[in-house]
Amino acid sequence: MPETRLDLARIRAARQVIDPVFLDTPLYRCEALEPVLGCSVSIKLETANPVRSFKGRGTEVVASRLGSGAVVCASAGNLGQALAWSGRGRGLDVTVVASRHATTAKLERIRALGARLELVDGDHEVARERAAAIARRDGIRLVEDSLDLETCEGAATIGLELVDAAPSFDAVLIALGGGALATGVGYVVRSGAPGTEVLCVQPAGAPAMTRSWHERRVVTTGPTNTIADGVAGRRPIPEVLADLLVVADDAVLVAEASIIAGMRLLLDHAGLVVEPSAALGIAAILEDRDRFAGRHVVTVVCGGNVDPAAYRGWVG
Amino acid sequence: MPETRLDLARIRAARQVIDPVFLDTPLYRCEALEPVLGCSVSIKLETANPVRSFKGRGTEVVASRLGSGAVVCASAGNLGQALAWSGRGRGLDVTVVASRHATTAKLERIRALGARLELVDGDHEVARERAAAIARRDGIRLVEDSLDLETCEGAATIGLELVDAAPSFDAVLIALGGGALATGVGYVVRSGAPGTEVLCVQPAGAPAMTRSWHERRVVTTGPTNTIADGVAGRRPIPEVLADLLVVADDAVLVAEASIIAGMRLLLDHAGLVVEPSAALGIAAILEDRDRFAGRHVVTVVCGGNVDPAAYRGWVG
Repeated sequence: MPETRLDLARIRAARQVIDPVFLDTPLYRCEALEPVLGCSVSIKLETANPVRSFKGRGTEVVASRLGSGAVVCASAGNLGQALAWSGRGRGLDVTVVASRHATTAKLERIRALGARLELVDGDHEVARERAAAIARRDGIRLVEDSLDLETCEGAATIGLELVDAAPSFDAVLIALGGGALATGVGYVVRSGAPGTEVLCVQPAGAPAMTRSWHERRVVTTGPTNTIADGVAGRRPIPEVLADLLVVADDAVLVAEASIIAGMRLLLDHAGLVVEPSAALGIAAILEDRDRFAGRHVVTVVCGGNVDPAAYRGWVG
Repeated sequence: MPETRLDLARIRAARQVIDPVFLDTPLYRCEALEPVLGCSVSIKLETANPVRSFKGRGTEVVASRLGSGAVVCASAGNLGQALAWSGRGRGLDVTVVASRHATTAKLERIRALGARLELVDGDHEVARERAAAIARRDGIRLVEDSLDLETCEGAATIGLELVDAAPSFDAVLIALGGGALATGVGYVVRSGAPGTEVLCVQPAGAPAMTRSWHERRVVTTGPTNTIADGVAGRRPIPEVLADLLVVADDAVLVAEASIIAGMRLLLDHAGLVVEPSAALGIAAILEDRDRFAGRHVVTVVCGGNVDPAAYRGWVG
């Protein structure tokens, strides 16, 4: 495999500093989904922890290496919640910058966990700029999701748990946003289970990284248009794209209707409340059943933070 | 502690034969619930596995000790589903007897897992009689939930995972039906964390075991009236009651409205789809906030098998 920024020894070391509440998450066949989807489906469930997303794996690594002091990040909500959790336990002073239009439940949890929350007009890219400005102004650590290796290494520990599973999987379906999850998990799967296809899934309404992967250069886009708030970026990070080009076998875009159908299937057949980003893998199967027919796929259910009213509106 | 049928060495041995997919389930603080409930709340989540309930722990022990042959059980749905799963993996011939009025989703999963399903008119007690008759007629093993020690020992492995947690809990809230879960978990908690209150919770509409516990003798009742199908028995088993009298600190009854409110809270604040029996612990807190104020309780979320339409009706 060509060089990436990732490294197995560092990922194994990252695992050692993550609170066990985020590790060894459930991994199980969900046969009730299978007649509907036409393939064998396993779930890697990252929602049953104190912040209801996989992001705690990365923020634990960030916070453990920081020791003390102040830290700021931009977040659509899950990273901020996780950083607030990890920072609280270690006495860190945490500031989270988010869009005023972020999921209310996520913003409430960030506040409840004791972080300072600064809201910006505009989208996640505006929040990223503002977080960087705060870091410069205050001389504090900026945590940049997907660019900072700790966030990728934390996510990559999911990969360690996947490649240890028996039997191995034919394909792993990973939500693609900034790229920490996809490059982290993808790297470990590519290293430890080279026969497993690494397939990244992004909403057609937020296609920047997927387009970049296909064109092998950074492609930025205009405003995003998706309910999958956790993966709605417009400006891919070059270093992350470079890693993704090495570890991903494919990147596909899915329609909003498929994301909603995926959420509904996960609710009705798996009893899982998931946020839109966590249904991207199921959406990809729904959009291309032939590709997956008869294969055994695992999908990372990466987060479950939703506004109850919005969720009810989606799943009906 | 006075003698019970349970034994820590046997429970530790049981753990060794259970498929790891059922073990080391998520255990985490759910702070979003806490402002509503007025106490610290941890969740022990038993729904993220192939049968969406804790029952796989017990049926793994049953099936591993049977080796081969045929087996029959009565079930409200979860035991049957779990026995079908455990039996399928070991080539056992599994028959499940259930009430015609059992939760449809549970019956469908029992069939899908390859078990023979026999439906009876009448309730769970009628199913128990019919299963016993089949066992006598065919000369096969009858698995009796809560009476057969394997079912208690399997459930008790949850207790091992709870007493290993730090910090310890002030109280553990356990759904009470036939009693396998309550006596199993209760025994281990009583042994390993004697400062933790063992509190059993049953619906007021199915109060047989709770009344028996308070009167210290078997009390049977007429027809049950509860949506908590998993705990709706009428005829407590004397041996199980004897154990429960040793290990439980208290047993309380809760109203149907509280069970529904508990399900809704778990959905909106924890993102968990649970069956009514799994909301009994939260219902108990809702009905007696003063009792739990400021304490740290853990509730075993024991199952998540619901009919989607019924569930939507309950949570609105």
